[in-house]
Amino acid sequence: MVLFRDHRFLIDCGEGTQRQILQSGLGFKRLDKILITHAHLDHILGLAGLLSTFSRWETLDRLEIWAGGPALSRIRDLLFGVVLRGARPPLEVVLREISEGGLMEDDYFALSAFPVVHRGGGTFGFVFEEKPRRPFLVERAEALGIPAGPIRRQLVEEKAIRLEGGRWIEPDEVLGPLTPGAKLVHVGDCGSTRELVAVCQNADGLVIEATYLDVEAELAAQFAHLTARQAACLAKEANVRQLFLTHISRRYREREILAEAQEIFPSTVVARDFDHHQIARRKAP
Amino acid sequence: MVLFRDHRFLIDCGEGTQRQILQSGLGFKRLDKILITHAHLDHILGLAGLLSTFSRWETLDRLEIWAGGPALSRIRDLLFGVVLRGARPPLEVVLREISEGGLMEDDYFALSAFPVVHRGGGTFGFVFEEKPRRPFLVERAEALGIPAGPIRRQLVEEKAIRLEGGRWIEPDEVLGPLTPGAKLVHVGDCGSTRELVAVCQNADGLVIEATYLDVEAELAAQFAHLTARQAACLAKEANVRQLFLTHISRRYREREILAEAQEIFPSTVVARDFDHHQIARRKAP
Repeated sequence: MVLFRDHRFLIDCGEGTQRQILQSGLGFKRLDKILITHAHLDHILGLAGLLSTFSRWETLDRLEIWAGGPALSRIRDLLFGVVLRGARPPLEVVLREISEGGLMEDDYFALSAFPVVHRGGGTFGFVFEEKPRRPFLVERAEALGIPAGPIRRQLVEEKAIRLEGGRWIEPDEVLGPLTPGAKLVHVGDCGSTRELVAVCQNADGLVIEATYLDVEAELAAQFAHLTARQAACLAKEANVRQLFLTHISRRYREREILAEAQEIFPSTVVARDFDHHQIARRKAP
Repeated sequence: MVLFRDHRFLIDCGEGTQRQILQSGLGFKRLDKILITHAHLDHILGLAGLLSTFSRWETLDRLEIWAGGPALSRIRDLLFGVVLRGARPPLEVVLREISEGGLMEDDYFALSAFPVVHRGGGTFGFVFEEKPRRPFLVERAEALGIPAGPIRRQLVEEKAIRLEGGRWIEPDEVLGPLTPGAKLVHVGDCGSTRELVAVCQNADGLVIEATYLDVEAELAAQFAHLTARQAACLAKEANVRQLFLTHISRRYREREILAEAQEIFPSTVVARDFDHHQIARRKAP
């Protein structure tokens, strides 16, 4: 789940997801946006139980599910055919087909989708990008005698303000140079990294699959999955800050995957259920 | 899961069942018979993941799913519509509609279904009954000088045998009187126990839901569920030997349910995930 301000995005929803959400303590509150990377069952089956639970808990009015065409058609059959079977949905369920480009945006961030190579087609990855902003320079504000409170927010919003003594303060006096926001890229199942270097460029966080080890690179290619090595090479080439590996095959131990990746890209972690990571923007140079 | 000789029966298959099966250590081997009590999603959604996993593990040639009409239709849409989508199933999937009466039987046991009252209709409970048999009286066999081995099996199968000295032994000489086999009754979600007393009569084990406590009997009735008290009264009235309560609402603690039931029927346990119980036949009187 990606949390940003008031937004919560669930990415993919395999069997048992609702149970994991409850166990994580995050709960279903405000969980009104679900992004699906592709149509394979281990990424969508949990939607049935989730919708069924939402009907009983009545915590949401509206649920948006974003997916590529093939996934959306399967999800439609699952939710409207199997779960609802002609009954009126307990909340508004909006199925939105993803195409490459912007999906949504507000004053603080933008979310966009990009195509990913995987079996079956219609697979997408996601970029969460905070908008660039000018940091508020607290020390300068103190020196200028600008009191804490709403007056400072006005300056952050680049509006001039007038102090009690009558003096005007321009935003430029207390705002630093524009700095880029944090960037998080999420890639689900994936058969090739070549096309992803540009979109991952300078990401503060990259979440991506690493199903196999390099010794089974052939098997990985056959099923359109990545090895830990391939994922690490992508992170290195794209100048990523922190790499998070997921979707590890049961046949390996976590430390084997980690060792293979870290040899190429040291800032790697293997994500576990219930892990919590903060993606921070880079410091201004 | 009910295990009997070489048979394995999975009863109901909610979301996440495949994960629990793996965690239990039982695995998918010989898991070729699934009995579904009714059509509600929390009893069938796990079939999708299970079938999807069976396709990859290739441990089974054939899977039989037994369910009432409404459940079967929903399961058909889930498995053939959402999971397979026109693809050839990886193993033979046989959907069999339950009606009241015998479902299957072999030399050692019989399985039958009986109707249960619950929302939506088409709900069934199941009776597993070992066939009555005559116990082999080892002490008498020893006294008669009958050697251990296949010769004893012939006597158990009620065939006369001839000892090496030439003497004939009749089965009656070493077999005790006919004694009933073990009887296990399984009831899933259930709104009324009145009709169940006869079918539960003298069961060695009764597995049944107890969603609510008696203080919420009205709510229980409204949703066609049972209270712990009702389940215990049924067990008492039907002269059951051991009562297993399942499907407890999250709002209660296990010990509250247990206390309410045990006040009426002391031989009660609340079943937990991964519990393992043996249902033994009663001793001959």
